[in-house]
Amino acid sequence: MKVIVDFCVIPLGVELSLSPYIAECQRILEAAGLKHELHAYGTNIEGEWEVVMDAVKRCHYRIHEMGAPRISSTLKLGTRTDRDESIESKVQSVQQQLVS
Amino acid sequence: MKVIVDFCVIPLGVELSLSPYIAECQRILEAAGLKHELHAYGTNIEGEWEVVMDAVKRCHYRIHEMGAPRISSTLKLGTRTDRDESIESKVQSVQQQLVS
Amino acid sequence: MKVIVDFCVIPLGVELSLSPYIAECQRILEAAGLKHELHAYGTNIEGEWEVVMDAVKRCHYRIHEMGAPRISSTLKLGTRTDRDESIESKVQSVQQQLVS
Amino acid sequence: MKVIVDFCVIPLGVELSLSPYIAECQRILEAAGLKHELHAYGTNIEGEWEVVMDAVKRCHYRIHEMGAPRISSTLKLGTRTDRDESIESKVQSVQQQLVS
Repeated sequence: MKVIVDFCVIPLGVELSLSPYIAECQRILEAAGLKHELHAYGTNIEGEWEVVMDAVKRCHYRIHEMGAPRISSTLKLGTRTDRDESIESKVQSVQQQLVS
Repeated sequence: MKVIVDFCVIPLGVELSLSPYIAECQRILEAAGLKHELHAYGTNIEGEWEVVMDAVKRCHYRIHEMGAPRISSTLKLGTRTDRDESIESKVQSVQQQLVS
Repeated sequence: MKVIVDFCVIPLGVELSLSPYIAECQRILEAAGLKHELHAYGTNIEGEWEVVMDAVKRCHYRIHEMGAPRISSTLKLGTRTDRDESIESKVQSVQQQLVS
Repeated sequence: MKVIVDFCVIPLGVELSLSPYIAECQRILEAAGLKHELHAYGTNIEGEWEVVMDAVKRCHYRIHEMGAPRISSTLKLGTRTDRDESIESKVQSVQQQLVS
């Protein structure tokens, strides 16, 4: 089952700047071969459920390894059986409405 | 790795009342032997990462089987390495602050 | 317009225990006369949109005053025009499905 | 107080394609003069707390007017007092980590 995810990870008990931790997650997603797009409040990820979820788990483990004793992350999970969907097609379907 | 989760599932393309779908998820969590507590806008779940995530996946599959062509769910994921935590201890630590 | 909300606030750049901040938010909700119920990963709040949102804003201001330089919170917002709903009725409608 | 928000709105009891509703929200944000960026699972919005929240409220009202009897939306709210931040600077700080 394919899933489109929005993942936002917040390490706690570390310095105020979270970008080193988020950058590390980007590397994990990249290494997993997953399509992903960073935005200002999270990262869109597209792929097979198991692959995506395994990458999310590895992000939690890696951020703990980097020194964060506590993590709170949020995940939105979109699945559908009626048709195929992608990160691009979701954005395009809204943009087409705005042009017409 | 233990995780405390807040899971909220929204089936799309079905009737307005979502309670049959949410009730089915409660049965899946129960069958998985996971500690879980329903509230008005989701369900707290406590357990090992793999077991919790497997149950969440089965909820998506089951809701599609029940007829929903599209699902959007949200998941908050809390992990920590500094100490053990439970659904009860999280609530109690706030309540103790209110009493004192 | 009435809204049922799930509010979860994460102060950053403070100690690991967040309960003093969450307890302070409970006091703000209480003072605002809002129906509210704490759970392990947030607080359900029920009330008029403007009153609820004003309380959420005051929680952010107060937590900054308490010393947190950065806050990331999540809010789920449920509104409906077809019928009235409450924190209790949402939970009950699922529980009735489980009994029957 | 400035806020950076991630807003994702799900109308219920309507057709499966949500893009007409999301497009309407883009128009509301545009009319409010708010900086905003659509992504595949929501929209980043940047502005003064009151202006952003007023726009979010108008999105709920408008979607009900368009025929949706029920709405469930999610909002992430980021505020900070230590320094100014923007949608662009948040993305750039992660990208700089990836290049270096």
